Amino acid sequence: MPELLKDKAFLASLVRERMTVLTIGLDTDIRKIPSFLQSDVLAFNKAIIDATRDVCIAYKPNFAFYEAMGTKGWDILEKTIAYIGDQHFIIADAKRGDIGNTSGMYAKAIFDEMGCDAITVSPYMGHDSVKPFYREGKWVIVLALTSNEGSTDFQKQELSGGQKLYEQVMRTTASWGDHNNTMFVLGATHPSEVRACRAAYPDHFFLIPGVGAQGGDLDAICAAGLNQDGGLLINASRSILYASSGTDFAEKAREEAVNINDVIKPHLGGGSSIPYIP
Amino acid sequence: MPELLKDKAFLASLVRERMTVLTIGLDTDIRKIPSFLQSDVLAFNKAIIDATRDVCIAYKPNFAFYEAMGTKGWDILEKTIAYIGDQHFIIADAKRGDIGNTSGMYAKAIFDEMGCDAITVSPYMGHDSVKPFYREGKWVIVLALTSNEGSTDFQKQELSGGQKLYEQVMRTTASWGDHNNTMFVLGATHPSEVRACRAAYPDHFFLIPGVGAQGGDLDAICAAGLNQDGGLLINASRSILYASSGTDFAEKAREEAVNINDVIKPHLGGGSSIPYIP
Repeated sequence: MPELLKDKAFLASLVRERMTVLTIGLDTDIRKIPSFLQSDVLAFNKAIIDATRDVCIAYKPNFAFYEAMGTKGWDILEKTIAYIGDQHFIIADAKRGDIGNTSGMYAKAIFDEMGCDAITVSPYMGHDSVKPFYREGKWVIVLALTSNEGSTDFQKQELSGGQKLYEQVMRTTASWGDHNNTMFVLGATHPSEVRACRAAYPDHFFLIPGVGAQGGDLDAICAAGLNQDGGLLINASRSILYASSGTDFAEKAREEAVNINDVIKPHLGGGSSIPYIP
Repeated sequence: MPELLKDKAFLASLVRERMTVLTIGLDTDIRKIPSFLQSDVLAFNKAIIDATRDVCIAYKPNFAFYEAMGTKGWDILEKTIAYIGDQHFIIADAKRGDIGNTSGMYAKAIFDEMGCDAITVSPYMGHDSVKPFYREGKWVIVLALTSNEGSTDFQKQELSGGQKLYEQVMRTTASWGDHNNTMFVLGATHPSEVRACRAAYPDHFFLIPGVGAQGGDLDAICAAGLNQDGGLLINASRSILYASSGTDFAEKAREEAVNINDVIKPHLGGGSSIPYIP
């Protein structure tokens, strides 16, 4: 049986089927999950996944949270990714990037060992640090304008040609791939920039962190960024994972996901057609 | 017994004792090590470490090469780092950097779980992505101007104020720490920039990749960058690790390290005093 190709058409079909662009960030923090599951992080992840499969299109495990548990954490990460299966888009939020032979090894780790569909990549080291991540059917998600305060330190610096650094990063890295294998990270805390980027890149998917705990405005981001395919992967992590610290944690996680989808859905046409909002 | 503080004085004392600034990059590639050790990467690393302890001051495991082996690789990495012990400076070459709570988890992974002394960090996401790595007695090594071709794509872009991006990165990040907890990555392929950075930052240590397989000129870098403390950590990986694919691999690795040291030593005063070369 041929392996399922998780290309842009696959993403667009998930958006149509589930009427959402919600991505759930699996930033599983052992100090924040219900106390009765602190010795079994994998069981926590499985319960979250089982409770949310039909209300999201992607999962985004955040590698830091698993690495912080040492070798055991790496094992939990592998098993979590395997458990998600092939009806979701799986993003390795790892923010890697190094010289060519090293990026090639990270690609092997993320795609071959872990079986993820996409990886977040830092562009700072340039073309030979990013290109080794391009593989048939896999996606490179380039950090452009991130959701955090520090995005002003370098990403918003103006270059001598008048562009901001993040604009130059998008222009340059867009030329290394295309809208079938390249996405950009744009923080939900920058809605006007998201709107401008949508105009400049009408067909690219954007990964949008920063709603929920980080304070980004979900409604504004939907208005600014959705396109005919959905075109966004809007991530929420903490607000879903830690919606309750009781035995009802999975049920409450699902409720929070549904609440988010209630904001997203009208922008997608409310169940009928998906309007193009440039 | 108080834990050994691996501060700048510790580094300078290692340089004086061993008369070198050589750092050995443990980029252990299962496809390149001797065939009789391909099922035992840890044994390969231990043999390399045993053969080179007295001819280098630091080891720099490259996390990508271990992650590419999956959970097993993470276990080998932990055991390799533990095996090095406390008479060397241990750099996690991981090039991490994310929003604050996530960088905090990476710090936990690298410093608490792994016991490394330093981590390489990508500056792209700004202050709140870098500051969580600052810990008493630990070091942050910021990517400034890397050794690869792609360093021209963004790092050498001129900002509207006239500075290059990497110069701005150094100026800004230098203010977040000091020369007792902050280093910069400068590629050996940019000797004139290393000279200028030494003049601008006389007391900071620089981590220098790019000699050996990447073609940087070792002699030129020593002349451009050494200072009264040594002030450089000059990394070599492939040229040492894969000096031989036979049973003499460790002996040949040591020979290659000694050859490198023969170039470095005269710049350090040949065994007597260490001249200050601004």
